Amino acid sequence: MAPPTRIGLAGLAVMGQNLALNIAEKGFPISVYNRTTSKVDETVERAKQEGDLPVYGFHDPQSFVRSIQKPRVIIMLLKGGAPVDQTIKTISAYMDKGDCIIDGGNEWYENTERREEEMSGLGFLYLGMGVSGGEEGARRGTALIPGGSFEAYKYIEDILLKVAAQVPDGGPCVTYIGKGGSGNFVKMVHNGIAYGDMQLIAEAYDVLKSVGNLTNQELRSVFSEWNKGELSSFLIEITADIFGIMDDKGDGYLVDKVLDKTGMKGTGKWTVQQAAELSVAAPTIAASLDSRFLSGLKEERVKAAKIFKSVEFGDNLIESDQTVDKAKLVDDVRQALYASRICSYAQGMNLIRAKSMEKGWELKLGELARIWKGHCIIRAVFLDRIEKAYDRNPKLANLVVDPEFAEEMMERQSAWRRVVCAAINSGIATPGMSSSLAYFDTYRRERLPANFENLTS
Amino acid sequence: MAPPTRIGLAGLAVMGQNLALNIAEKGFPISVYNRTTSKVDETVERAKQEGDLPVYGFHDPQSFVRSIQKPRVIIMLLKGGAPVDQTIKTISAYMDKGDCIIDGGNEWYENTERREEEMSGLGFLYLGMGVSGGEEGARRGTALIPGGSFEAYKYIEDILLKVAAQVPDGGPCVTYIGKGGSGNFVKMVHNGIAYGDMQLIAEAYDVLKSVGNLTNQELRSVFSEWNKGELSSFLIEITADIFGIMDDKGDGYLVDKVLDKTGMKGTGKWTVQQAAELSVAAPTIAASLDSRFLSGLKEERVKAAKIFKSVEFGDNLIESDQTVDKAKLVDDVRQALYASRICSYAQGMNLIRAKSMEKGWELKLGELARIWKGHCIIRAVFLDRIEKAYDRNPKLANLVVDPEFAEEMMERQSAWRRVVCAAINSGIATPGMSSSLAYFDTYRRERLPANFENLTS
Repeated sequence: MAPPTRIGLAGLAVMGQNLALNIAEKGFPISVYNRTTSKVDETVERAKQEGDLPVYGFHDPQSFVRSIQKPRVIIMLLKGGAPVDQTIKTISAYMDKGDCIIDGGNEWYENTERREEEMSGLGFLYLGMGVSGGEEGARRGTALIPGGSFEAYKYIEDILLKVAAQVPDGGPCVTYIGKGGSGNFVKMVHNGIAYGDMQLIAEAYDVLKSVGNLTNQELRSVFSEWNKGELSSFLIEITADIFGIMDDKGDGYLVDKVLDKTGMKGTGKWTVQQAAELSVAAPTIAASLDSRFLSGLKEERVKAAKIFKSVEFGDNLIESDQTVDKAKLVDDVRQALYASRICSYAQGMNLIRAKSMEKGWELKLGELARIWKGHCIIRAVFLDRIEKAYDRNPKLANLVVDPEFAEEMMERQSAWRRVVCAAINSGIATPGMSSSLAYFDTYRRERLPANFENLTS
Repeated sequence: MAPPTRIGLAGLAVMGQNLALNIAEKGFPISVYNRTTSKVDETVERAKQEGDLPVYGFHDPQSFVRSIQKPRVIIMLLKGGAPVDQTIKTISAYMDKGDCIIDGGNEWYENTERREEEMSGLGFLYLGMGVSGGEEGARRGTALIPGGSFEAYKYIEDILLKVAAQVPDGGPCVTYIGKGGSGNFVKMVHNGIAYGDMQLIAEAYDVLKSVGNLTNQELRSVFSEWNKGELSSFLIEITADIFGIMDDKGDGYLVDKVLDKTGMKGTGKWTVQQAAELSVAAPTIAASLDSRFLSGLKEERVKAAKIFKSVEFGDNLIESDQTVDKAKLVDDVRQALYASRICSYAQGMNLIRAKSMEKGWELKLGELARIWKGHCIIRAVFLDRIEKAYDRNPKLANLVVDPEFAEEMMERQSAWRRVVCAAINSGIATPGMSSSLAYFDTYRRERLPANFENLTS
């Protein structure tokens, strides 16, 4: 089969390549383009090797655009900001009225709204679509989070339904999110939730290792076990795997060698800034961002560690020579992690709802939980329960007061308190777990000391 | 003495009125103007009553501007944003080249930078000047935080030096901060620090009341006692006073009657957003903002409190019928409050430094601590020590590693851990204290579990 193809894709870094191959594999001939043309050839070569997939490469934007059947749909997978504007300018020069551009990157939602308006003035349709699930998801099936022109969405719905991850009890992981920049906004918060999840899991690991003295082998089996129960999720699964990986040189575990400095994408920062903008408390997500900032200050931390090396901890310090009840600690940490994660998801969901109300997007939180069950980084068994909670009550004020989750929080909170206090008394920071707990204890408190602040400010 | 006056002031809400009277009292005849002219008459009347102060009122902008000697200086005290642009437009129509406008409100620093550039194009000078200390400070002597045109600053320095609060061992609480919007930015962070302080004090009050069962009379004497030591500060002083105030109806203490819902200004929100923007961890300030957000959800909290009323706390719960060692708790909370406040100030200072480096402002952190010792809301005895810490080492990476503060942190951290754990085990949220502690424990940790996040993301 030769062009005209059904769809085009511009931007052939790893995410773009994989998504193009996925689309082709699902039976939709696709044209691909990249400014650095070697990437085009690379993609076409991969398409051949991975089963003669119908991927057609172009080295110039004009023949790329003209190769697509009308009305044309072109997905861009680029770094947000200026590269997107530049590419729109390049390809739209050859487009016709009624054609559609889809931005599949992690773009700031207001940029999408600006572009949608600009494109609309030129007779083009526009979508901002979050693509979750990383390389693997892009290639095999991903969560797609499209917002913007509903007309454009309907035109490519058949493609998206097949390209999306398929969840046995939930269908394809895609839905039309809403107008304007809603797709990008939801993807942004999704990434913020992922930051929170990663931070909380890192803290669980830290407590088990530093307080409980668990070995990497023990950690591996704990996380594997956890992945069979309520915590079951992609991040827990890969965490279990990580503890089994040996260093290249074979002289130890990789996890103990990797530098403890973490970078970050814009989406985590934006999530925290939007929470402040919308007056929504999101302390768990904020704690994950702050931890990344502090992790970056490696040299300062090394110096500070020397200065404070003689610190003596609280009365309840678990001495290193004291026997820790490992089984009890593992069970407590499991509960603390679960309760903290629920708080983090509650914050993210409430942030999305606040924005939806401000913008009139009418987003359905249960539907979001449903599509996140697919091949995305925060996929987790409990998303199914979150979906049901919002189905039961679309106006649910907070996940923690849903009857089912409320009961779980009650069951787990003693363990949660034990874990945070054990960490505090061992000098181990658990900013995510402790801010989640403070969020819970603040939210369930009828009377706060805020009366006091009204009298002083 | 009749006009021409030395200076003008536009915007006669309570801050503007008080600052005008302060300037006049220090010997500088002043012209005043307000769009709602009744405020002009009110101010002139107050000037008469408070000692025939040289305040001259004008009902129209033209005669107001023309009454001031050239080069003219006009201070605006308005709500930030559009009202400032409107007033600039109104008064600049009658100004001459070389005249200067000073914005004394809580303005977003980028607005000041935009206006300074616009004014510069018209031949006018511009300053953005934070004014701290509330009504009382504006009237009696305040901390002034001016940034922008150095030429403009020098021209009115004689006024500012007299209008500023005078600190016995520190001189007048004013200094030229730096270029552009630096004055507004520093004032913004100052307000963020004040939010953190208020939150931490509210938590101390909450723990003493809810865990320690202290009466309002006991609380009053505790805070009075604290105000004689290391915690001595304006906010501790007025807190002590609050516990002595009875309700209007005389049937109880005011503190127990006031609604526990707190509002907020833009400056706290901006501080948190800028911290995220600049990759600076500021969890204590963020916790204070989140607590205000959650305090606003009064109805939700009342419902959640009912749902979770049967919650049983951790093993270490201090039962209500159990005897608490009040004296020990009070001493622990004092130490926890002090250590947490130092973390909060460290975050604010590092945020200012990060912005200063980004913008090339070359701000002097020690000087900022010095001017905050005056009549501003965060004035505190330990600002003197902060000033000295930065004098000793202007490149100090973090306040907590200054040798003196480091020693204090070490001495206090056991008590700090006891307080946070006691609160957690009683179901009392201390988000400010616990996030400060997590900040400290993260910062002084050579190896963080961030290695893990590098492997999963």
